Amino acid sequence: MPFSLPIDVRFSDVDALGHVNHAMFIVYLEHARTRWWAGYLDGRPFSEEGFYIAHVEMDYRKPIHLGDAVQVEVRCVHVGNTSFTLAYRVTRGGDRVVLAEGQTVQVMVDLATGRPRPIRPQTQAWLQSQV
Amino acid sequence: MPFSLPIDVRFSDVDALGHVNHAMFIVYLEHARTRWWAGYLDGRPFSEEGFYIAHVEMDYRKPIHLGDAVQVEVRCVHVGNTSFTLAYRVTRGGDRVVLAEGQTVQVMVDLATGRPRPIRPQTQAWLQSQV
Amino acid sequence: MPFSLPIDVRFSDVDALGHVNHAMFIVYLEHARTRWWAGYLDGRPFSEEGFYIAHVEMDYRKPIHLGDAVQVEVRCVHVGNTSFTLAYRVTRGGDRVVLAEGQTVQVMVDLATGRPRPIRPQTQAWLQSQV
Amino acid sequence: MPFSLPIDVRFSDVDALGHVNHAMFIVYLEHARTRWWAGYLDGRPFSEEGFYIAHVEMDYRKPIHLGDAVQVEVRCVHVGNTSFTLAYRVTRGGDRVVLAEGQTVQVMVDLATGRPRPIRPQTQAWLQSQV
Repeated sequence: MPFSLPIDVRFSDVDALGHVNHAMFIVYLEHARTRWWAGYLDGRPFSEEGFYIAHVEMDYRKPIHLGDAVQVEVRCVHVGNTSFTLAYRVTRGGDRVVLAEGQTVQVMVDLATGRPRPIRPQTQAWLQSQV
Repeated sequence: MPFSLPIDVRFSDVDALGHVNHAMFIVYLEHARTRWWAGYLDGRPFSEEGFYIAHVEMDYRKPIHLGDAVQVEVRCVHVGNTSFTLAYRVTRGGDRVVLAEGQTVQVMVDLATGRPRPIRPQTQAWLQSQV
Repeated sequence: MPFSLPIDVRFSDVDALGHVNHAMFIVYLEHARTRWWAGYLDGRPFSEEGFYIAHVEMDYRKPIHLGDAVQVEVRCVHVGNTSFTLAYRVTRGGDRVVLAEGQTVQVMVDLATGRPRPIRPQTQAWLQSQV
Repeated sequence: MPFSLPIDVRFSDVDALGHVNHAMFIVYLEHARTRWWAGYLDGRPFSEEGFYIAHVEMDYRKPIHLGDAVQVEVRCVHVGNTSFTLAYRVTRGGDRVVLAEGQTVQVMVDLATGRPRPIRPQTQAWLQSQV
């Protein structure tokens, strides 16, 4: 995958069942996506090319425990007119066993109004390179 | 829907974009599910009928802001041998406009081993009543 | 105390040790403070009388478990020129046993610049009533 | 200071005011403390030398923004019979400007009963080396 980020698992990510809470996986995706997008923005503010999350889904395969080395891999699987879809793999460091897989749909919005807007051609081209 | 829980939106649920973070919606579902399941357990420990989350998905329709009255509605849409599927609506208090819709798949597990186990007949029957 | 808010303890507030994580107590104070302040603002935006947290401290007496009825009580113990100090009690519903006690110092700021500014006379008067 | 941990600031750590929420600083301390303690435990379970947090305090000097390089430094400032006190500095990567300073008091407990117990002599000696 074109982008991968190691996740620094925190004690507070773990719930009463003794493994990372399932909602924290969604936070891990967000964290990886934020870094990936910051790489594209390259210093420009998020408000210039901001998006909302319209859909998220996740399949959980194996638990994550405190002390595990984990990474999130990101790639782009669809680019539409106003939205794009990312796919993620949460993998274990070392053997890269898949711990979870997910997708999110982002809708490009004007953050001032909250209304969708077209993805710029240059951004579309970059997204299409992230496969 | 057979179960509904008002959500007490916290300042810390809101992210830098000024609305409730999309991962917090997953936490809201968990909160409602926990209360709903506690009603069934009726004082028995979670370890007696514990489950892991195998899948989650969510469609986001409208943002939630601090101060909004919000509730999560829960119903059961599928009961299998070792797993069951819940559907949720996050709605606005008052006019009950749908803010988000989601599903989760729970797999019944022996919490000591982490292995799946069959849903007890009595529990199956109760789940089938939660439609 | 002049203000009290019931806390809706979530499964996600509980950590791997099986009780509400100590950092979540700080979130509970924030939640109570936000509601208390919203009562004073009465619809005016937070930006009109915004503050930052300059100091927080907390003494933990007893753990909180999932299912416990809990409330946070708030009162004002000091009003300065640009800052004010709040004291909190986290108490159990019913017998009102004290579970934790804390204080926070708020500094009034111009949110646009992040610089301190004097507390308005009218706000000072209101704070002095919250004892 | 004898221990220092870089913090990987997440988008979800930032609140509606646009900087890292003050309660997240407490989570950062916990994260650093957990890693520091894991170094001492060296593979032994936390239950062997577990503790609860009895007190936390924090002074906030400067805000943390998304993208900031941040670290938490830890040292031990007091070792008692059943408790020990840690002091922390949250500093900026690079120029090491102090962003926040805090302390926590830990009480050694038998996790099965929740009761305090004496700090083992070997652990006391190690804590006294962490100054």
